[in-house]
Amino acid sequence: VLITLTTDFGKQSPGVGMMEATIAEIAPDARVIHYAHGLGDFDMTSAARVLETVAFVAPAIHVCVCDPGVGTARRPLALLARRGDILIGPDNGVLLPAALALGGIGQAREITNRDLCREPISPVFHGRDIFAAVAAHLAKGVAFTDVGPLLAVDSLVPPPYDDAVLADGCWRARVILVDKFGNSHLNIAVPDWQAFVVSDNESFEVALASGRQLTVEQLSTFGRARVGAPLLLPDNDGRPALAVNRGSFAATYGIKVGDDIVIRSASDNAR
Amino acid sequence: VLITLTTDFGKQSPGVGMMEATIAEIAPDARVIHYAHGLGDFDMTSAARVLETVAFVAPAIHVCVCDPGVGTARRPLALLARRGDILIGPDNGVLLPAALALGGIGQAREITNRDLCREPISPVFHGRDIFAAVAAHLAKGVAFTDVGPLLAVDSLVPPPYDDAVLADGCWRARVILVDKFGNSHLNIAVPDWQAFVVSDNESFEVALASGRQLTVEQLSTFGRARVGAPLLLPDNDGRPALAVNRGSFAATYGIKVGDDIVIRSASDNAR
Amino acid sequence: VLITLTTDFGKQSPGVGMMEATIAEIAPDARVIHYAHGLGDFDMTSAARVLETVAFVAPAIHVCVCDPGVGTARRPLALLARRGDILIGPDNGVLLPAALALGGIGQAREITNRDLCREPISPVFHGRDIFAAVAAHLAKGVAFTDVGPLLAVDSLVPPPYDDAVLADGCWRARVILVDKFGNSHLNIAVPDWQAFVVSDNESFEVALASGRQLTVEQLSTFGRARVGAPLLLPDNDGRPALAVNRGSFAATYGIKVGDDIVIRSASDNAR
Repeated sequence: VLITLTTDFGKQSPGVGMMEATIAEIAPDARVIHYAHGLGDFDMTSAARVLETVAFVAPAIHVCVCDPGVGTARRPLALLARRGDILIGPDNGVLLPAALALGGIGQAREITNRDLCREPISPVFHGRDIFAAVAAHLAKGVAFTDVGPLLAVDSLVPPPYDDAVLADGCWRARVILVDKFGNSHLNIAVPDWQAFVVSDNESFEVALASGRQLTVEQLSTFGRARVGAPLLLPDNDGRPALAVNRGSFAATYGIKVGDDIVIRSASDNAR
Repeated sequence: VLITLTTDFGKQSPGVGMMEATIAEIAPDARVIHYAHGLGDFDMTSAARVLETVAFVAPAIHVCVCDPGVGTARRPLALLARRGDILIGPDNGVLLPAALALGGIGQAREITNRDLCREPISPVFHGRDIFAAVAAHLAKGVAFTDVGPLLAVDSLVPPPYDDAVLADGCWRARVILVDKFGNSHLNIAVPDWQAFVVSDNESFEVALASGRQLTVEQLSTFGRARVGAPLLLPDNDGRPALAVNRGSFAATYGIKVGDDIVIRSASDNAR
Repeated sequence: VLITLTTDFGKQSPGVGMMEATIAEIAPDARVIHYAHGLGDFDMTSAARVLETVAFVAPAIHVCVCDPGVGTARRPLALLARRGDILIGPDNGVLLPAALALGGIGQAREITNRDLCREPISPVFHGRDIFAAVAAHLAKGVAFTDVGPLLAVDSLVPPPYDDAVLADGCWRARVILVDKFGNSHLNIAVPDWQAFVVSDNESFEVALASGRQLTVEQLSTFGRARVGAPLLLPDNDGRPALAVNRGSFAATYGIKVGDDIVIRSASDNAR
């Protein structure tokens, strides 16, 4: 059984090592994959965006801890996705885009079974004492129904972003991840974007939160633009992202997570 | 058998990969956990603080390489802790707080057995050629007594910090780790601190090295303070740390490792 | 079977996790070692330098993805090195110094066998869909000859650096890696450097790209220089590097990858 770990802990503190050690003790045969740990502190939007890409790996148990509310009343959550994956983390919305990408929520449960936790539970480190421990017990064969009582899906905290909506030929989108290369990922759903694009190498008008406007071509990959030129390209899971060939879109244009981005086709008048 | 690795090597250079590959060659069945690798260059205080938290994971062989003296006369060291863990690294004090947290030193030995090392030993990379190699041989079943001769515990280089002492109702403490979130960990022993705190949500007067003074409440977790407000909280292993809810104490107040921090109860006059 | 992964992806984005998950699905028994992932964006020189150090670990399959040309006409490449290692990555020169360090190229093949890839192949992520997938199939026992047709070695894109040449008692070298500690690695071949050095603790005149000149001693390790003093030392694989004891040569002297460095013996007049 595979367990992926995604956190905002970085590699300076031993939080990630403690989580893996907790899993190794309970479920020595589970394989742990460190999916992404350098997320910005408390950046739940990026965490959710990163986590939804697990739809591109084999079904697994996915633990995501970006948890500024640790130790408060927010609920510890386990979701069974329709594809068969299990998502574990705090009920702060971060798990929901991934659940959607995995076919939707089959069951949502609050983690209340203390037998599956590491005692005593530190009020500042549920990642180790609840989330990693529960993931390990599930990997070892504990039934999903044993984690705790069912929750109504509409009682869950909403996701940090929804998919952008097209109105009057215009996407009002949001930046949901700036990756190491400065590529700026947008909250436009894959089928929506594919339906919108009319032709290969189509041009788009992009209005940034700063007020700056630019025209970019959609290209299949970075190297099809001139070095230093901006482009729009489907990321490896299909969501569109703004990029610069051999450069950083975020650094060049001053982009950060949460920025509004408005996109329309450059040939709109002709439509 | 579990081997944890803690270093100041980061993820840019392949040092950590070389250490794991060395272990994989000698002891393919040992499980390697990358405990923390982003420590500040040569920051032995933070290394020691991070390493002592292994008391919160299952007994293992722990290798810690923060080693500005590599290749000089400083001794390569192996400690058998009373809990059963083995600590391996240079004799520069970094292993000692962890040994204390693991019940104290059962045996201290100098690593002199070249049969357990990778030859030729690079004078700039004992982490790979001595420490990782010896850990792997121990994981494979070599007896601890085979690493080399006994050392008198009082001959070891002292730890980078001792536990703070309470005098006149006042802790003269030191910052021993600033983690990714800016939480500033203090060298106050867990039972000492627990004995000092009189009541839940008690307030403390804190004097920073900069001369700045602030009053903070001890709270069980970050989210019990207002967003942006400072607090004092027991870290996941119980040592007190200064923090800011959804912010960085270190960035907000200009804290760095080694800073002196003076703490007294805000109700001292009443005591 | 061991698979090492070296990339410029960092730990913020899940690219590395996706690569490991792809391998885990195809070849669950292969052991994945994360060799180095924090390389500078598109920094093929550093990637090549890091990768060549795999000569110091046991024979394995080594995947290196620093690939600004992903999805363009550049070829996906697999090299069988004479030591028995397999090197996998884009044909952009990055694999060649490692191949040399592993005894030279036995066979070079273009990866064309789509049965060994993960479909559909994303034009922006060959690291996952081609390189990791092919490595996993080879780890599982697929024959090297099955990856695709033979390539003439002289048709490969040349390496990002060659070994420096000695002329008139003077090395015109280049910085090929600045590691986390600021050590500045030079492209001087190990046997060439060893033949050049006349005596222990020999002094050298170093001219930096900035025009600054300094005299440094070759010492076996950092701690043999005064704290804060520059030195020249053979790195753990023997190539010379410029360093500062308990400091950063790169930060102190303003060094970056690609800088020209001229070195001559300080006793040249006497030769």
